[in-house]
Amino acid sequence: MNNTINNVAIVGGTHGNELAGVYLVNYWRNTEPQFITRASFSTETLLANTKAIGLNKRYFDSDLNRQFSAESLANMNLSNYEQSRAKVINQQLGPKGNPKSDLIIDLHNTTSNMGPSLLIPQQGEFYDLLAIYVREMMPEAVVLLDEDHIANQDHHLLSTIAKRGVIVEVGPVPQGVLKHEVNEQMAKMTGIILDFVELYNLDNLPQLPSSTDAFRYLESLTLPVNDKNERMGMVHKNIEGNDFQPVKSGDPIFALFDGTEINYQGDKTVYPAFINEAAYYDNNLAMSLCEKVVINNPR
Amino acid sequence: MNNTINNVAIVGGTHGNELAGVYLVNYWRNTEPQFITRASFSTETLLANTKAIGLNKRYFDSDLNRQFSAESLANMNLSNYEQSRAKVINQQLGPKGNPKSDLIIDLHNTTSNMGPSLLIPQQGEFYDLLAIYVREMMPEAVVLLDEDHIANQDHHLLSTIAKRGVIVEVGPVPQGVLKHEVNEQMAKMTGIILDFVELYNLDNLPQLPSSTDAFRYLESLTLPVNDKNERMGMVHKNIEGNDFQPVKSGDPIFALFDGTEINYQGDKTVYPAFINEAAYYDNNLAMSLCEKVVINNPR
Repeated sequence: MNNTINNVAIVGGTHGNELAGVYLVNYWRNTEPQFITRASFSTETLLANTKAIGLNKRYFDSDLNRQFSAESLANMNLSNYEQSRAKVINQQLGPKGNPKSDLIIDLHNTTSNMGPSLLIPQQGEFYDLLAIYVREMMPEAVVLLDEDHIANQDHHLLSTIAKRGVIVEVGPVPQGVLKHEVNEQMAKMTGIILDFVELYNLDNLPQLPSSTDAFRYLESLTLPVNDKNERMGMVHKNIEGNDFQPVKSGDPIFALFDGTEINYQGDKTVYPAFINEAAYYDNNLAMSLCEKVVINNPR
Repeated sequence: MNNTINNVAIVGGTHGNELAGVYLVNYWRNTEPQFITRASFSTETLLANTKAIGLNKRYFDSDLNRQFSAESLANMNLSNYEQSRAKVINQQLGPKGNPKSDLIIDLHNTTSNMGPSLLIPQQGEFYDLLAIYVREMMPEAVVLLDEDHIANQDHHLLSTIAKRGVIVEVGPVPQGVLKHEVNEQMAKMTGIILDFVELYNLDNLPQLPSSTDAFRYLESLTLPVNDKNERMGMVHKNIEGNDFQPVKSGDPIFALFDGTEINYQGDKTVYPAFINEAAYYDNNLAMSLCEKVVINNPR
């Protein structure tokens, strides 16, 4: 297969209240297009959930970033605002399976203390090299892999409709808020990814380290609830804000309202991400547990 | 006037997505009423904006905590959900000017890094003693005064319908999120206020310091906007998260998207609060500027 990246799409506002991507896409589009321009590929920009952006909400009817599995895209009965918008975006940047876009960079914010994170939903040499390059150029960046448990056709993320896709996820920032440092980190990581693509296309990558550390998603933990599905507690203060820090068996993980604690019971050390993310409260999700892994340089 | 506090009302959920107060009021009401009970006064609890709590939103039609001026309460043409709810709450805990409640403690969260703050919207010996007592028992607490610029009848806050009222404001926490430490700080400050009222009623206050430091609200700063009222920048990263830290003339205060900075131009040192508060984005408010003041022990 031809590995050259000819068309890159940078997407903001997939969630309407994650403002860094919305502002950066508008800024690059209107004021500084040279920031996202490189010689070896074309770049287009998209504001994905325009209605939710206008409302400063995550979504209008349903989460746009859960509508891009091949099955959902083919199901014409899924017709609410985001389900319709997904089909239009798939037409514009996809279609999934035979896409016009070679790479989507989808810009997101989280209320969790995840710093600048690169989320990678697929496997391959391109991604391994990208992860090592980003970590080399931006050591404060974290790489989070979620590419093992699901086929790309079944992935429901917007970033999976192109040939390749990544998510730039930066926090902590409350929903609907712009933070200077968060904007800077998002712009920096996006620029580094574009630099990488340019060097990758030109087969001109610098000498890179033989490996880099990363995290791989294992499973989600839900908040403890009673038999009426009411929350009985919250994320323990020892965990709060400590995304990507180790949690060992026996460590307190939830604080119940009655003053008692629930300890982590797993048999191996895990590393939580998306700790206490505001947008996941609808589903009572408390955090994502990850394992620490090593990405080896494939070259 | 009779200074005894006979009836205390603890209010949560005046803003529906500030969860600490909602959860604590429910918990104290259903599980641990002794936490808010003292011998010398009766305590009632209220969840104020029940509809917004159900929706996990700040408000349904308009901000409930802006509906309690004497004029708004008397205007029967103000009839949306929160305007109606305000009149009912005024009936239940007020009425303003001749209230049943001697003290309202209104529980709030902020996305700003204000820690546990006690907001005082009126002047008087009771408040001075309370401020000194709270700071003595909880040195990490901040006292924020907003009692100079407006008569109590014109104050639009829920806490101003009782004879006395204070706001317990704790952050940082994103909207719609419960944080263990924030809940603990809110419960601790509320307990200390109730202890104070008990000692005040019994004329049994301990020896208190001769003064304590506090902050007094001066004015609000708005985000820089262009002639289309679009934001041109954001709070500078040197300011972000540094609530109650000094800002001097010439310090960078806003970072514009074009890379330039705006410096603070005032002639005296100020101390910002509510920096980058998510709920104030509708009005483009960037922060509240305060001066540092000393509260002297009146006894």
